[in-house]
Order: sequence, then structure tokens, then C-alpha cells
Amino acid sequence: MLALPMIALAGNIKSPNGNIEVKFSVDNTGRPVYEMTYKGREVIKPSHLGLELAKDKHASKGMDETNLIDGFSIAKEETSTFDETWRPVWGETATIRNHYNELAATLLQADTKREILIRFRVYDDGVGFRYEFPQQQALNYFLIQEERTEFAMAGDHKAWWLPGDYDTQEQETQETRLSEIRECMKKAVNWNNSSVAIFSETGVQTSLQMKSQDGLYINIHEAACQDYATMHLELVDDQTKAFTTKLGGGSNAYTPSPKPSAYPLPQPFTFVSHLTPDATGLKGAMQTPCETPWRTVMVSDDARDMLANNLILNLNEPCKIEDTSWIHPTKYCGVWWEMIVGKSSWNYTDDFPSIKLDKIDWNSVKPNGRHAANNEKVKRYIDFAAKNGLDEVLVEGWNVGWEDWANMWKRDVFDFVTPYPDFDIKMLNEYAHSKGVKILMHHETSSSSQNYERHIKEAFELMNKYGYDAVKTGYVGDIIPRGDHHYSQSMNNHYLYVVKEAAKHHIMINAHEATRPTGLCRTWPNLVGNESARGTEYEAFGGSNPDHTCILPFTRLQGGPMDYTPGIFVTKLSEWSDNPSWARITLAGSLALYLTMYSPLQMAADLPENYEKFDDAFQFIRDVACDWDDSKYLEAEPGDYITVARKAKGTDNWFIGGKCDENGHTSVIKLDFLDKGRKYECTIYADAKGAHYETNPQAYTISKRVVKAGDILKLKEAPGGGFAVSLIAK
Amino acid sequence: MLALPMIALAGNIKSPNGNIEVKFSVDNTGRPVYEMTYKGREVIKPSHLGLELAKDKHASKGMDETNLIDGFSIAKEETSTFDETWRPVWGETATIRNHYNELAATLLQADTKREILIRFRVYDDGVGFRYEFPQQQALNYFLIQEERTEFAMAGDHKAWWLPGDYDTQEQETQETRLSEIRECMKKAVNWNNSSVAIFSETGVQTSLQMKSQDGLYINIHEAACQDYATMHLELVDDQTKAFTTKLGGGSNAYTPSPKPSAYPLPQPFTFVSHLTPDATGLKGAMQTPCETPWRTVMVSDDARDMLANNLILNLNEPCKIEDTSWIHPTKYCGVWWEMIVGKSSWNYTDDFPSIKLDKIDWNSVKPNGRHAANNEKVKRYIDFAAKNGLDEVLVEGWNVGWEDWANMWKRDVFDFVTPYPDFDIKMLNEYAHSKGVKILMHHETSSSSQNYERHIKEAFELMNKYGYDAVKTGYVGDIIPRGDHHYSQSMNNHYLYVVKEAAKHHIMINAHEATRPTGLCRTWPNLVGNESARGTEYEAFGGSNPDHTCILPFTRLQGGPMDYTPGIFVTKLSEWSDNPSWARITLAGSLALYLTMYSPLQMAADLPENYEKFDDAFQFIRDVACDWDDSKYLEAEPGDYITVARKAKGTDNWFIGGKCDENGHTSVIKLDFLDKGRKYECTIYADAKGAHYETNPQAYTISKRVVKAGDILKLKEAPGGGFAVSLIAK
Repeated sequence: MLALPMIALAGNIKSPNGNIEVKFSVDNTGRPVYEMTYKGREVIKPSHLGLELAKDKHASKGMDETNLIDGFSIAKEETSTFDETWRPVWGETATIRNHYNELAATLLQADTKREILIRFRVYDDGVGFRYEFPQQQALNYFLIQEERTEFAMAGDHKAWWLPGDYDTQEQETQETRLSEIRECMKKAVNWNNSSVAIFSETGVQTSLQMKSQDGLYINIHEAACQDYATMHLELVDDQTKAFTTKLGGGSNAYTPSPKPSAYPLPQPFTFVSHLTPDATGLKGAMQTPCETPWRTVMVSDDARDMLANNLILNLNEPCKIEDTSWIHPTKYCGVWWEMIVGKSSWNYTDDFPSIKLDKIDWNSVKPNGRHAANNEKVKRYIDFAAKNGLDEVLVEGWNVGWEDWANMWKRDVFDFVTPYPDFDIKMLNEYAHSKGVKILMHHETSSSSQNYERHIKEAFELMNKYGYDAVKTGYVGDIIPRGDHHYSQSMNNHYLYVVKEAAKHHIMINAHEATRPTGLCRTWPNLVGNESARGTEYEAFGGSNPDHTCILPFTRLQGGPMDYTPGIFVTKLSEWSDNPSWARITLAGSLALYLTMYSPLQMAADLPENYEKFDDAFQFIRDVACDWDDSKYLEAEPGDYITVARKAKGTDNWFIGGKCDENGHTSVIKLDFLDKGRKYECTIYADAKGAHYETNPQAYTISKRVVKAGDILKLKEAPGGGFAVSLIAK
Repeated sequence: MLALPMIALAGNIKSPNGNIEVKFSVDNTGRPVYEMTYKGREVIKPSHLGLELAKDKHASKGMDETNLIDGFSIAKEETSTFDETWRPVWGETATIRNHYNELAATLLQADTKREILIRFRVYDDGVGFRYEFPQQQALNYFLIQEERTEFAMAGDHKAWWLPGDYDTQEQETQETRLSEIRECMKKAVNWNNSSVAIFSETGVQTSLQMKSQDGLYINIHEAACQDYATMHLELVDDQTKAFTTKLGGGSNAYTPSPKPSAYPLPQPFTFVSHLTPDATGLKGAMQTPCETPWRTVMVSDDARDMLANNLILNLNEPCKIEDTSWIHPTKYCGVWWEMIVGKSSWNYTDDFPSIKLDKIDWNSVKPNGRHAANNEKVKRYIDFAAKNGLDEVLVEGWNVGWEDWANMWKRDVFDFVTPYPDFDIKMLNEYAHSKGVKILMHHETSSSSQNYERHIKEAFELMNKYGYDAVKTGYVGDIIPRGDHHYSQSMNNHYLYVVKEAAKHHIMINAHEATRPTGLCRTWPNLVGNESARGTEYEAFGGSNPDHTCILPFTRLQGGPMDYTPGIFVTKLSEWSDNPSWARITLAGSLALYLTMYSPLQMAADLPENYEKFDDAFQFIRDVACDWDDSKYLEAEPGDYITVARKAKGTDNWFIGGKCDENGHTSVIKLDFLDKGRKYECTIYADAKGAHYETNPQAYTISKRVVKAGDILKLKEAPGGGFAVSLIAK
């Protein structure tokens, strides 16, 4: 293979419908270059590909050559086409078509006798490409100093971005032009927060949604990130400042990645990949044969296509779980919101400044009287779930350790098997099961991943014993082992390790604060949810912008479903607590989220008593499905509005949701997707006249009518509002 | 408690027999100071105690005060006395007396409202002291920047030392004056070894044995090191150079600990503690209530007392395992030495430059024909063990993964449950058990502690299933997670985690390359052995000095038994292999090690065929016990000679061993420890005339006679030689 003549090839490849074209070549220094167009318009201008390796102490074992940047020639190019339709275990549609043309370029670096492969898959709605490293004597193990994948933008696009941070993605999204990122970063980041792990003044996260001045929607993200560090993007806005910022919030200051001074700087408006480091500052340890995640660029001139796009799922491997019968979409409520709001507590006692699990007799400590996860309250939630057709009840704070659980560098923080004295795990599960309800397990790890791995088998065995089939995991606080980060290679490996171990125990995973998803739920559909963004809880921490939920489907949700925990009916928390925060959404808008924020796991997050006050509106949450045979994105504009119609799995019923930002929106919906000649009982939950997310959030109307295919619904959404519609086939 | 008046106390405390005295006070800057004398002679000159904490990013939680150095006053002093006799599960003697006087000084740091306690236990043969941190609002969690415990020596003692290294203790011991350490360090360290992790030109390891010019034997070590970083010692030899060296071998250069510039430098010949860092460079994360390990100073004017000393065991907590019936001293042979020598291999195939465990069909790969752990060979060893009364057979290389197992930053290196195709785990265990022999499990972790913890439960369950009751673990190579070190807090926690998990499965642990022991085997007697020093394997890697085994009992063995793997009869490896190395010991000297290197786990390390050539000498290995009711150190001088007599557990039989350095030695042994009026069949295995470790190692004599109490044996040990005696009560 290495003896092949060096052929200077340059490959062009088009998507099946021809809308997208990728050109690939190596430049005169042997650097791989690609570019991408959509309907003849520039999406990615010529951009370099490559990686810098680290010179390792084990250099004698071939770990001394650090250059995977230049000196390449194209040794071989292969093209192919692929077209299949597959059925997800759960999803927005019953089937998904995976149709692409592929270019696989084998690159030979003559000086080092190393060979890598770059594989492009060109879809009608985007491109995925990745680096592949075949097993070979000259490249057997390597450490990554930095991946240097460029995405050169064709203009000063508008972007919806989060500050690049190694440990959080729970910030508010910023909406600026690319040229404004550096200036905006100064206010986008809470520099007083000691846990800030910002690496550059122009560093942003993916999935990054952009819109060009001439109306192209472009999204950069990644697919199938497993055992590899999560990618951030560093923007070259000004060549004089590129790769030179030195930042860091608290005492953990982060060194920016080294400037690749040996190579010409990218042009302005180029993003360069920046991987999350581990405790040593390196980005990963690899063994051939291996590959990077797919780097994805999705594009369309219609924003709705961005939401209907399945490119990231398609780039993941097929399902690896043989029997998936135990995986099920789930609607749930939970003992949760009242702790988030501050009315009750996760912890059982306030008696100690700190605790050690093996030193406390829990039956003799003094209860604080505020512990939420108690038998009486949990039974109340079980009753509520049973009465309202909810499948499960999440209970947080059931297990010992919450007295001092976060950010104290405490490794042995939870054991995941010992309930507090007032949580009778056997009785409560039996009670729930007798009513057709399951309890949803909770494992907060405090980011002590080592401790969680030590206990995970007993924890899952306990779940099996008592009939739990799903767990919400949490990664609040700093990673232990110390020095590591939430989105590093080793932590990404950890999250997937947990998913795989859970699959062995027929347990579904809903991981909070874990790395942002990249479509791995196709391969491991027991990964039914992630948080990995600013969720509803922030409505109790000062609030989120009303447009937040009109951005997330374009960004965070591209990689997989989010456990956003919607459904807040009483938005002014002071109505029932001392918390002055309030949710920036109308009640009808809250209903819309069950459609616009797709997830197979949907929470009814508010208190039972709050729902009981608005039982007519709660009827929609009782009715709405969380698994679908079809989905039609009817209207969409990032940060402004999203309207989607979905057909409930295995039925002829449709549900429609529309959600808008602070400016309100009027939706005109043509029901041309309904079955011809069939009638539907249509119930519309809408903002009432005068409704407003701040001043009048609970003003809603419920109206019913009978509709048929071709009818038109005109629905007004209030500022920060929305609507929800159910269409029951008669 | 904090309201107590500040009393400027100074405490003096003597050992039970008055030989040792400790004085404790705080100086005029509020720094704690202690000093120690033995029979009125200075052992430790006035030396400061204290710790520097790290200012943490979570400073708001009280983790901002870094000073635990000065500003203290003595708030309270309590003295007490303790005297008990306890029975070890296994050991050198049937009972151990734990007799000390104690001084517990409570120190208040008025500015920070923090309180710590320093506890001294003064024995007749040494002192242990530690820092204790009670639970308190102002000191709840903390990170350790460095422990600053001083040990000011009274003179330019001779010292037997190892270069201070965070990852290895397998060097040759250096014997120099304290003033010569800096110069000697340059040649003591292999600076070309990329894994060298040296922190200072005057950094040494413990246990550190010294001898003063006027004949005091002094040893500094630690006891009960658990969930705390292993301590090294940095010598202040020259105040102008103290704490200023910047060293490091390979690409991982180590930053020396920061100079505590705010405080006066210690006097020359003062050792200052230097803890092993983690990946972030910090030394530990603590939660009150907690304490450091005991810092130990043992002293005597008779070198034999240093070996008979039980201070380190006594400072550990009593046994925590309720049923210890499954723990047993063990004599074993193993499929091992032929791989160490290079004649056969751990790995099964040579076909791949690297492997991934989940990608290989082991039944279809091509065997290399050199794989030692095959059914035929293992049966041969089982037969040999059964025939010779050995309890177990170690088999290394039985499990898949050895093809690329070390130093490649490979996390998922072994699964610990999958045998190679030529190792029939079920058949071999049944075969062994049918002959009254057990197979001794082997778990090489390649220092991928995370991987081992992930697999440990299945690994131990496999052992239980097939009837293994002991495992040799290994930690070769760099620690994964990367950046961590073998002797850090987190790795020390890991080693003990493994011991505790093993105890749940009734499994004994023999950990190689793990941290040096500190007496934890008292608390967890299933920790039957450690390597943690230069073992017999180095005789195949170029050899060890003949005096090596006359030093180890004074240093490494102070903390617990070593699996030294003695018993090499054919010392010139070229006699049966291509290895040019040769063991620096005579055959009779090899027999002596079964006495002088105390361990409840003793290997007969040479090949069965080599033993069969010297079956008359092998009779001693068949006969010798490895658990004892009594032990008498008859002669001792560090680096020169050791002679010890031991009474076999539950019998009236005695065994005596004598081992000397390259200069030879004549032992005159008065058998006054034998039962009066009783006769003993005495068999003497001695160096023959003209025996020499280099030129004539296999010249030995075996003689028999009948002896009684009071008789005298005069035995000549050849250069690098020794003798072994069995005394069977008639």
C-alpha cells in the first residue's frame, strides 16, 4: 500500500440531488484542503485538514512524529454511493433514509511513511467527514496535541453561539455576527465564576447554528463522538489576534492551544477545531485502527430543513442492542421542581458541615423537615402519575450523601444504593407498580466519575431488583479525577461506558451535565435523553430568554433529544415559594414544548397541585404522545419561531406545537398532511388575547372543532407564547 | 473548644522504658516544633511541623486559607499510656506488644480559627506522630500544596537511600553520607529513562535507613498511609541550593515543590517531607475529620532492634476482616521466571503491531509458539508443586492482552477474564485442585487503574468460580488516567480499594509495583505481599548488588512483607537461556532468603528442572515454614549481614537463615532460644569452601547433626552467600 505511486488527485463529489458539492485536494505543501458549496453558493471556502500530535515520552515506540498536517499526497481515492432506510427504536419519524455519496481519500505522508484516510459523506442536506487512521507500523499509538480542522466561512454570518467552555454548556445563547463574537464574549461569560473554563475569546461550542447574509442556514457540529474529546471551534476573526488569548476565570487558568506558527494563519471567519483537554493538557490518546468523530456541516436555504435533518443520526452506527423491547418513550413527573425552586431539599439533615458515608447512622440523625423524597410525598406523586397516565415518577434526593454533594473535591460522595430513612424503596416501588407506574431512578455523581464507576454495578443491580428501568444521571461540579474536564476524551468514554453497562441491565439513561450529544442514541437507543444545555431549571435560577426554546432545536437538539423538563404552568414561582424567579413562557407556550422540543422522554415538571389548578390545560399533557411515526416542520426561524406537526406512533392522530420568541408570532397552518377524507377532533390550546410571558402568562383558551385535510388553522402566539393542538382521528 | 485560653505549653514525653524522649512546643512565630532523643543522644534536632494548603477555586467554601504552618498556640495537651498485646493473622511472631506513651497536642491558629492536633506515640524503639484535622467550620475540606514535616538530623549520617521518584522504587540502594547524596544522585538515576520522575537532586524515598557516626541506627518511614500521598524526603544539604533544583528525565519534567520562602530555611541535614503529586500537581484533597499517615522514626543502638521493631504495624489499626480463616501463608512456584529471563512469552501471538480486545478472534490468530501459560506447561508446574508440597502455582500470561500491554497509554488493555486459547481455565483448576494445589491468579493492570476498577468485580467473580484465592497484581508503566503517579493519593486509594474488594471475595492480594507498604497488612491481612522494590527479576535484567538483600529488611520490609521471589538455584541464566545476566548470590544464600526476607508468601522462583538438579538443597524449600510463632534476630548490620532464627507456627521446629554481602561473613550462633532439654535434628545448608556468588555459586554442603539448647553453630558465609538451617524437634 505504501509503495503506491503518489498521484496528485483532486476529488469532487456531489450529493445525490446535486445540491451540495465537495472538492477535496492537497495544496502545494501537501496539506489536505476541502471546500463545499450548496446550490453553487459557497458554504465552506477552501479549508485545511490535519492534526498535530504530541511528542511522547515513549518516543522510542514511534510516538515521536508529530506532524499530521502537511507533506501528504493523495495515494488513492474511492467513491461510492449508499442508500438505505432504517427504523429507529424511537424517533421523530418511523423510518429514516440514509442516502449519500462518499469520497474516501487515502493520504500518504512520504517522509514518515504514515497513511491516513479522510472520508466524506455528502448528503442532500449536509456533509460529514472524518479522519481515519489505519493500523500501521509507523502510526500505531499516538497522542493528540490538537486537531486542526478548519471551517472557513464565506462571510460575516449571524451565529447563535455558546462560549467555548470545557465544563459547561448551560449558558444563554448569544446571537451576533461572527465579527462580534470577541467583543460579546466579554459579557457572555461570568468571569467571576470560579469554574469557568474558557479557552479563547473567540471560542464557541458546537452545534453552532449560523445564517448567512443571503439566507443560507449553516450548522457545524459532530457525529458519533465516542472515546474522543468533544470539539469546540475557535474563530480566526483577526489574524493578529488568532490563537493568542490567554483566559480563565478562577484559579484554574487555561492555557490556550499552541499557535501553529509553522503554518500560515487561516483567513478571517475561519473556525479551527479545538478539542477539550485532559488533566495533562493533551487532547487524546489513540490506537490505530481508529477514527475521529464525523465533523458535520448541515446546510439549507430553508430553516425547516435544519430541523428535519437526520444527517447526524445517519452518520452514527446502527443499533448495537439486539433486544430493544425494554426501551420505551416515557412521560414522567417527579419530585424535583420543588427542590430546584428551593422549597424543599435533597438532603435529609442539616446537622453536619460535611459527612462521610461510612461514618453516619442515618437512623439517628436529626431530619431537617424539608427532605422532599419522603414516603408520603413520593406516594402523592405516584398517585398523580397513575391518575394522569404518566409512566414514571422521578425521585431525586432519595439516597444518602446530599448533605455535601458538590464542588468540594469529595470523591466518595454517594453510594447509589442507600436510601434515606424516610424513603422506603421496597414499599414505594411496590406501591408504584401496583398502580402501573415506575419510579425513575436518580444517580447524581457530583462528577466523581471514578466513584460512580466503582458503584455502578451494585447501583444497577439495585435498580433491577426493585424494577426501575431508567435512571437520570447527573454530573454537577468539577470532575474527579481532578484536572479532567466534562468534555474530555476520558469523560466521553465514561458517559458511553455507563450507557453500555446500563444496556446490559436493560436500563435507559438520561444523562444531565454530560457532554453534548452527537447522535450516539442511534447506536445505543437506551440513551433516551441528555440535558447538556440550559434546561428549565434555569427558570428558577433567574430565568432564560423567551427565544431560548426557539434556538435549542437548531443547536443542542441536533445531536439528540434533550430532557428539557418542560411544562411549567405556574411561571411566577413566588406564587408558591420564596423564589423570585419566573419562567419566561406562557402556559400555552409550555404545552407547545412537548412538540417543538422533540424527546422520547418528556417530563411534566410542575407540581401536581399546580397542574390540578389547570386541569383542562393539563389534558394536553395527558394526551400528547412522545414517540412519532412522522413529523412535519411547518415553520421555523432560529430564535424566532418553530411550528411542527407530528403523527403519534401507531395511530392516525396528529399533534401540532408552535412556539415563538418574545415578539409573538402568527401561524398559518395548512392541514394538508392529514388523511384525505378523514375527520379529526381538533382541540386547540392557545394563548388568550392579552396573554404575555411576563404580564399575563396564564391566559389561555381551549377550543374544539372538527377539521379535515386541507383546512387551515390560523393561530396567534403571544409574546413568549405558543400553542398546542391535538387532532384525534374520528 | 475554640474559646479556650491560649496556653503556651511545651510537652515532654518519654517512652515506657525512658530511652526515648520527645519534646514538643511552638516557637515564637507559632510554628510547632518537636525534637527526639534516644538514651540522651540527639536523634531529631528541633524540627518544624506544618502543612501548606492550596488556595482552591472553591475559596468561597472556606478553601482559601493556605497556612497551616505558623500562628499556632497550644490550646490543650493530653498524655496517656497504652499497652496491649495482639495476635497478627500471620507474622514473624505469634503476638505483638503495642506499648507506648502518647502526647496529643491541640493547636489553635487564632487568626483563622482553625484547630489541628498533633499526636505523638512514643515507643521504646521509636516514635510515630501524625497530624489530625477535626471536623470544624473553618477547616472542612482542603487541598494540600505540600506537607512540611521536618526531620533535622544530628549529623552527617550514613544513609541507605533510593532516589525520590513518583513512579518507581526499583532502583539499587545507594549507600552514602547525607552530604554525598546530591553528588551521588547524578549517577544513581538513569536520566535517559523517559519514565524517570525525580523531583529533587536531594530527594530520597522512605523507608530511609541511616547510621550515625556514633552508631545510632535511625529509620524514617510512615505508617498507615491510606488515601494520602506517599511521602518522600527532600534533604536540605546546603541552604543555598535547597528546594531549587529543577529536574526530570524524559519529556515529563517535574516542577519541584515551591520553596517555602516565607519561612526560614531548615538547617543543613534536615529532611523535609515531599508528597507525591497528582496530575494537577497538588498533593491531596482532604475532608475533616481526617489525619495524615503516621510519620515514624525508629531508633536503636543495636541494628537487630531495627529488624525486630513492630512500631509500624502497631501504628496501624487492628484487623478489619472478621473471618480471616481464608487467609493463609503460601509457598508457591510459577510460570514466570522463564518469561522474565526471556525464554518464553506472556503474549500468545506476534502477528499484530497492536491489538484491541474486542476486535480479535483468538482462536484464529497464529500462536507464536513461545507462549508459556499453556495447558501442558501449567500442568507440569502443578505436578511439581503437588510433589513438593507447594501450595499454589502462579501463572502469568494466561489472559488475553499481552500483545501490547505496557506504556502505550492504552486504557482497555486487559479484561482479566478471557484466557488465551491454550489455557483451559476450567480444566487446569480442576487438575490443580485434584492434586491439592491452587492456581495463583495474575492481574497485570499496566497501571490502567481505571480499567482494572471497571473489571474488578467480574475478575474476582471469575476467581471465586474457579477456586482461586490469591492474585498477584501488577502496575507496570505509566498511570492511566494520564498525569497521575504510582504513589499519589488517588493511586494509594486505588490499591487499598482493590484490597478491600478482594476481602469481600475472600481473595489475598500480592501487589507489584504498587506503593511501598506502611503496615496496612495489619488492618487488611489479605494484603499478603507487595513487591515495591527491586525484586529477584532484576537478576535477569543485569543483576543486583550482593548486599541488596542485606539492606531491604532495614528499608523496604519495614512497611510489610515483600514478594521478593527468591530461590534462584541456577544463577547463570545463560546455562538455560540466551540471557547473559546472572544472579549475584550463592545457592545457599538463596535458601537463606526464605528466613531473612520475611514474607507469608514465598516463591520458589526457579524452574522445576533447575530444582530437580539440586533436589537435596531444594529439601530446605520443601521444609521451611512461612508463618512463625517467634523470631530472633541474631546478627545484623545494614548492607553487611543478617541472621535470624524463626520458630515455625504451631510447632517446636526452628529455622535459621544467614545472608551476607559480597564480603562474606562468619556467623556464630548460640542456640539458646531452643527448648531446654530437648533435642533437635539439625540440617545445615551452607556455602562450601571456595563458594563465591560470581565464580562458584553452586558450591554448597548439606550436613546433619543433633543439637540442643545452648549449643553453638559456627557457619561461614561465602561472598554473596549465606546459609539455611532447619531444626526439627525430636
